[in-house]
Amino acid sequence: MGASETATTREIVIGVCRAAREASVRMGRASASEKNAALAAMARGLRGQAQWLLKKNRKDLDAASSRGLSGAMLDRLALSDSRIEQMATGIEEVIALPDPIGEVERMGRRPNGLWVGKMRIPLGVIGIIYESRPNVTADAAALCVKSGNAVVLRGGSEAIFSNTAIARILREAMSLAGLPADAVAVIERTDREAIDAMLQAEEYIDLIIPRGGEGLIRSVAEKSRIPVIKHYKGVCHIYVDEGADIDQAVLVCVNAKVQRPGVCNAMETLLVHEKAAPEFLPAVSAPLGKHGVELRGCPQTLSLVPGAVPATEEDWGTEYLDLILAVRVVPSMEEAIAHIRRHGSLHTEAILTRDHARAMRFLRDVDSSLVLVNASTRFNDGFQLGLGAEIGISTTKIHAFGPMGLTELTTTKFIAFGDGQVRT
Amino acid sequence: MGASETATTREIVIGVCRAAREASVRMGRASASEKNAALAAMARGLRGQAQWLLKKNRKDLDAASSRGLSGAMLDRLALSDSRIEQMATGIEEVIALPDPIGEVERMGRRPNGLWVGKMRIPLGVIGIIYESRPNVTADAAALCVKSGNAVVLRGGSEAIFSNTAIARILREAMSLAGLPADAVAVIERTDREAIDAMLQAEEYIDLIIPRGGEGLIRSVAEKSRIPVIKHYKGVCHIYVDEGADIDQAVLVCVNAKVQRPGVCNAMETLLVHEKAAPEFLPAVSAPLGKHGVELRGCPQTLSLVPGAVPATEEDWGTEYLDLILAVRVVPSMEEAIAHIRRHGSLHTEAILTRDHARAMRFLRDVDSSLVLVNASTRFNDGFQLGLGAEIGISTTKIHAFGPMGLTELTTTKFIAFGDGQVRT
Repeated sequence: MGASETATTREIVIGVCRAAREASVRMGRASASEKNAALAAMARGLRGQAQWLLKKNRKDLDAASSRGLSGAMLDRLALSDSRIEQMATGIEEVIALPDPIGEVERMGRRPNGLWVGKMRIPLGVIGIIYESRPNVTADAAALCVKSGNAVVLRGGSEAIFSNTAIARILREAMSLAGLPADAVAVIERTDREAIDAMLQAEEYIDLIIPRGGEGLIRSVAEKSRIPVIKHYKGVCHIYVDEGADIDQAVLVCVNAKVQRPGVCNAMETLLVHEKAAPEFLPAVSAPLGKHGVELRGCPQTLSLVPGAVPATEEDWGTEYLDLILAVRVVPSMEEAIAHIRRHGSLHTEAILTRDHARAMRFLRDVDSSLVLVNASTRFNDGFQLGLGAEIGISTTKIHAFGPMGLTELTTTKFIAFGDGQVRT
Repeated sequence: MGASETATTREIVIGVCRAAREASVRMGRASASEKNAALAAMARGLRGQAQWLLKKNRKDLDAASSRGLSGAMLDRLALSDSRIEQMATGIEEVIALPDPIGEVERMGRRPNGLWVGKMRIPLGVIGIIYESRPNVTADAAALCVKSGNAVVLRGGSEAIFSNTAIARILREAMSLAGLPADAVAVIERTDREAIDAMLQAEEYIDLIIPRGGEGLIRSVAEKSRIPVIKHYKGVCHIYVDEGADIDQAVLVCVNAKVQRPGVCNAMETLLVHEKAAPEFLPAVSAPLGKHGVELRGCPQTLSLVPGAVPATEEDWGTEYLDLILAVRVVPSMEEAIAHIRRHGSLHTEAILTRDHARAMRFLRDVDSSLVLVNASTRFNDGFQLGLGAEIGISTTKIHAFGPMGLTELTTTKFIAFGDGQVRT
């Protein structure tokens, strides 16, 4: 550290962000081969220095357990050989994705002979603010580098040794590939002021992506002078329509609830048409019960499913992230859509139906980042939707809506080729 | 007004924004025919009630001249038969544009048989904060309605009678077409608190677009909790390369400076390669001088153009919006690009050259919303680039970069058609 020990947190953060901004110029010009070479060196570095990384991670784990962190927190924080291998293969998957930079869209000729198109370019510098999982350091850096951006990473204090060690490996890989190490920057200060300083560095950072709980995201969004892409929560609904294929609906609903209940695209509320409910609700409650799912139902649900407990008003709109499901019987698809509008989170909604007109109306009228017909909500994911790796899922509509892959870390500039055109 | 006279500004603003949010649901489902019918009724209404509008505008003009506003301000504020006709034909041009809503992009099949695509949808509610020109009320409302959004308009206090009158005509047109009048809302309170309340209405407004001077935009960006699309200023450069076609370069540079000097895409700084300067600078200074342009030059410029005055450090980076041009001789294209990076505003830059490699490098390395080869900077405009009417020019990279047409007032959601797919 040396001189930096006497510098204030703000000075250090600004220095890191300024260096990232300068490095972003070179990154914007880097070819796909250069960027892929850096990514390959990152994957090699992580594998080659796995033992050293585990030692650094051990320091974080020791500090965390002496501070009495919960088992779930410790699990999120822990690295292992297989988790390091996952980081490395994750980076290799990013190498395989096409480079979006330099793509030209909609090139065409204007009446005056000017050729006009839109060229894809990086955003510049992306700031990532995240919590305990150290793998985010590698995952986010790989996506930012591949999309030609510089990245400033600010992880949680509980993972500081792990994050700093991972960053060191990534930065060495950048240098090995002839790219600027400062394009992958980690803020090593763990005090709150570091985040505040970062969120005010609008001169140097173009976009902030917070990854973590709703509290973190809200606090970042409130303080930031830089645009923030928010992913609040996933209160995902499935609506089972009158006349739906009951067997298929049972499979889809069970999958959406239990295949991985702790993630944002798991179903949290089930809406059932009153004509489908008498057959469907008993049919779905049996396998859900076998998986240990607690049902919290409206009065009609309670009369059809003996094991269910009454839902309170608070249950609608709750993201349980657990083996709990809110269930409501509705008189029509319109009521289901109105319920979603009132209680949903714009994340993921599905209709299960045989009726074509209602399928198309649901698709049009539901305002979520992914709307599905006859499939599980669990498909809202960058890999599943064909974007490759994702850096998050935006539930607000500005810049990106839904999973954010490489393209969502870029923008376009207009380009024009003329031969002396002037305005008249 | 009645009850509203006792309500606070904040309550009124929140009421207007909430009503716009509710109206946005219907707007998102409106067909192109419905939206075009509303727009046609707006154009008819403006023409049919022109005399009434002029009377209302007269009240603003009288108040403004009694408050001693400048002639230029009064001119921006004034309506006339021809300006009202321009508003009406502007709306008719928006009718002619294709409706972006409902377009599905990149529909394709995933390995599991799920069909996935991206459907274009409105943003929801757009807030426009603008200064004296009352025509913005009609122009902005037309673009928001055509793109399926609701709009909340907050114009300057000096145009309050004109804006309120225009809004009344537009709202009547919406009702005539069977669309909700509240989707076109004007905030009639002129105190500062109205803007503050609007900028905090993040529950109801999705995007804020400020239109006006740099002061307005900075103050909106600082206070807003809603994403803001910024258009700060246009410090546009032309770089005349070694070996450029001198005659063509003179025509393009004169056009870029004098065709309309008061707009953001006019050239403000001319950069000339030192090998082109001895022939080009005398050749361009003659017609520029004839148009009354004052040249402010670096020492080398002064030695080549006797009439030029010395440029100070402040001249680089100044948006004159006037018949003044900063001129600098540079030793290389790299120096020109570095100058642009240091002093530019990411708005519009052009290279005039015969050299293919340098043309392509300039295009790649200059980071502006429009980069041109051998054409005037004056082409950075929605109509000129083929977008149709524009609602502004973004000089920041999030969500939109460059002129914003209808598409930039929308986003996409993912849609998926399945037949029972689940995640394994």
